[in-house]
Amino acid sequence: MSKKIPHRLYLTEEQMPKQWYNLRADMKDQPDPMLNPSTHLPVKVEDLYPVFCEELAKQEMDEVTRYVDIPEEVQEFYHLYRPSPLVRAYNLEKALDTPAKIYYKYEGNNTSGSHKLNSAVAQAYYAKKQGLTSLTTETGAGQWGTALAEACAYFKLPLTVYMVKCSYEQKPFRKSVIQTFGADIIPSPSTTTNAGRKILEYNPNTGGSLGCAISEAIEKSVTTEGCRYVLGSVLNQVLLHQSIIGLEAKQAMEILDEYPDVIIGCAGGGSNLGGLIAPFMQDKLLGIANPRIVAVEPASCPTFTRGRYAYDFCDTGKVTPLARMYTLGSDFMPSPDHAGGLRYHGMSPILSKLYHDGLMEAIAIEQTKVFEAAVFFAKNETILPAPESAHAIRGAIDEAIKCREAGESKTILFGLTGTGYFDMTAYSAYLDGTMKDTVPSDEDLLEGFKRLPVVD
Amino acid sequence: MSKKIPHRLYLTEEQMPKQWYNLRADMKDQPDPMLNPSTHLPVKVEDLYPVFCEELAKQEMDEVTRYVDIPEEVQEFYHLYRPSPLVRAYNLEKALDTPAKIYYKYEGNNTSGSHKLNSAVAQAYYAKKQGLTSLTTETGAGQWGTALAEACAYFKLPLTVYMVKCSYEQKPFRKSVIQTFGADIIPSPSTTTNAGRKILEYNPNTGGSLGCAISEAIEKSVTTEGCRYVLGSVLNQVLLHQSIIGLEAKQAMEILDEYPDVIIGCAGGGSNLGGLIAPFMQDKLLGIANPRIVAVEPASCPTFTRGRYAYDFCDTGKVTPLARMYTLGSDFMPSPDHAGGLRYHGMSPILSKLYHDGLMEAIAIEQTKVFEAAVFFAKNETILPAPESAHAIRGAIDEAIKCREAGESKTILFGLTGTGYFDMTAYSAYLDGTMKDTVPSDEDLLEGFKRLPVVD
Repeated sequence: MSKKIPHRLYLTEEQMPKQWYNLRADMKDQPDPMLNPSTHLPVKVEDLYPVFCEELAKQEMDEVTRYVDIPEEVQEFYHLYRPSPLVRAYNLEKALDTPAKIYYKYEGNNTSGSHKLNSAVAQAYYAKKQGLTSLTTETGAGQWGTALAEACAYFKLPLTVYMVKCSYEQKPFRKSVIQTFGADIIPSPSTTTNAGRKILEYNPNTGGSLGCAISEAIEKSVTTEGCRYVLGSVLNQVLLHQSIIGLEAKQAMEILDEYPDVIIGCAGGGSNLGGLIAPFMQDKLLGIANPRIVAVEPASCPTFTRGRYAYDFCDTGKVTPLARMYTLGSDFMPSPDHAGGLRYHGMSPILSKLYHDGLMEAIAIEQTKVFEAAVFFAKNETILPAPESAHAIRGAIDEAIKCREAGESKTILFGLTGTGYFDMTAYSAYLDGTMKDTVPSDEDLLEGFKRLPVVD
Repeated sequence: MSKKIPHRLYLTEEQMPKQWYNLRADMKDQPDPMLNPSTHLPVKVEDLYPVFCEELAKQEMDEVTRYVDIPEEVQEFYHLYRPSPLVRAYNLEKALDTPAKIYYKYEGNNTSGSHKLNSAVAQAYYAKKQGLTSLTTETGAGQWGTALAEACAYFKLPLTVYMVKCSYEQKPFRKSVIQTFGADIIPSPSTTTNAGRKILEYNPNTGGSLGCAISEAIEKSVTTEGCRYVLGSVLNQVLLHQSIIGLEAKQAMEILDEYPDVIIGCAGGGSNLGGLIAPFMQDKLLGIANPRIVAVEPASCPTFTRGRYAYDFCDTGKVTPLARMYTLGSDFMPSPDHAGGLRYHGMSPILSKLYHDGLMEAIAIEQTKVFEAAVFFAKNETILPAPESAHAIRGAIDEAIKCREAGESKTILFGLTGTGYFDMTAYSAYLDGTMKDTVPSDEDLLEGFKRLPVVD
């Protein structure tokens, strides 16, 4: 075993990035503009001010600024849990008997248990700076809700979290963590909003979805004075903040004189994937390098692999602007897969555009195969991964096995987004054999596509 | 805010200690020898072989070897989650408005969620090396059980864990984590052993105790071929392995040109405290420096502050050798305090001796005060601490407040042993105001002391 490359590389505080990277600045072909859902005219930045705080609205629309300074206060917060390590998975390589070199960027070493904190702190900071007095959000698996509760506790901002009901029920202790940081938490759909009441009327036993929780959180924000809505994924601003993952990873690999042949990330709304791949995609866009980039999504919610590239609402309640993205339809209700963070009907418009233009690949995997990889990884690398993250692990393991079969020594980098401490219901279901794989039928998907908004 | 000292310092792989430090080698006055419970004669190393694996039995008795090489295989495992960071708690300092400098050594960045993994991997390694075919252990809060399950999965050794019943019930997901790593887990007291059946007969509704779970695990090990017992605290061998905490901390402080005026750790059986203070206590023993060393224990199980320094059994079933230590009596059953890892009737004989000789201090704190500190810490430093660890936080906060009142700029180092992800029942009880403080009466303690074994 080579000793030159350490198992874990942490950048020093001086080496840590001081700027985020905005991928759009290097895209020759931009994602299509967001549209007003009534007029179908492109949204202007002012149109977003009632929902988002102003600085974040500007970041959402900014296609030009390549590097954005990370505010001092946000850097201060980053120092409370970053840098995250770049890990060489020597033991996994050995267990797989593969000539591949496997690296992962591990974002789970913080109380939220995931990369979500990277954007939460930025969003809470800008809201506080603007003088807002409260925030609302939604959370699926609970990692985003925890992250934002941490950030809001730090900046002393009251927060209401709408949590997807099936996750709320599967993860009772997530609720307590969010409450410990002082936030209110409500299972969604709820009777506290018009959007929630409407969904409950149509489907009283639903386990909820991210799209539906988003509708409720937005409604609460626009009906509350001094309140704004924040979102943990999908948005351009989130990908901007999450670029810290990729920037740190690339810098650490440069220190090790390494460069990935393939980069693998799990894909729900795209926050981790977009952040992880950002500087590598830049290399691709600028013709500097040509790594393969692979998104791994759940077969139960196959947005990239079976969705349409079309204009759609970002939420189930159809109150948001329209975004052009891969989508399964804004009223798509995935089966209760345990990777709650990946159960979103749409996908980051930036990633959707890049995928549509052939700059990245995508695969969909059934959850039992994902948990098989999760347990194998835990036993060999000692980290218990989140179900979401385990999608990337499965992708990386399959890639490393292909390397073994082909006798190729590729360098694989994947994103290990978080820990599975709050997902033990899912692990128990896998271990006792009661976990099921459910995949939507072609008919169901077609029905959903028929309800997509019609845009000329 | 000074920028010269980074928020988090990670040693590089080269800087990491390659040897453990054996505190006894520098103690002029040794702890009294373990005694055979029947003959009251000092135990010989061979007497321990039926229970412990040979190398660990030797480490248990070794008062001479100052530095012990960490085996290559154990170092390899350490690289899967170490080094742990030394953190400067800038934000906590600011929130307390204290001139004190607060550092903590954070051991929670691994799936077991605590420092326990440091000894688990060593013990599993030596057992595997000796050709043993299975292990048993007990776990209180569940952190040791998880840690050992991780280590046993890595070395492919079957494991049975007896988990203190009240923790087993408070922490359903701990069980799933331990099972995910492939171990069997049984709530203690159980009907699977004579020791368990006896305790259940005497007290059928008991929530169990560490001492009782130890009895069951030992019984299982001595009645199973090729099986040995391993313990996560109290023992000399455990303090040896845990010295990695203090060695890393001291080295990191040296790099920062810092030295603690006071070192604070939580005290259950002494594994973290003994490891954290080891090299600083060495300085004290050798007259090189004279830092204050403070143990913080729960008022519900006040071993140091209200116990007797006497020979006692290490387990409730009275099957172990006698050790001279601070003890509340081996049949002491603490009230169901939420810091399951601190509910042990005894204390490391090494630490007991040092405390008895006036080389360290101890304080006892009620759990509501501990949780108050835990929530304050979480909101300011973003880490959700384990209830056990929060005892040290409380101690450090109180010390920092004293510094503010006295206008003194002391350097405080405390051990943050782990995370509270599996302790949300406790946090909920604290947040909704149903948490109670229970403290044993003098009469109850006196009754217990009457049952201590009589040794000439």
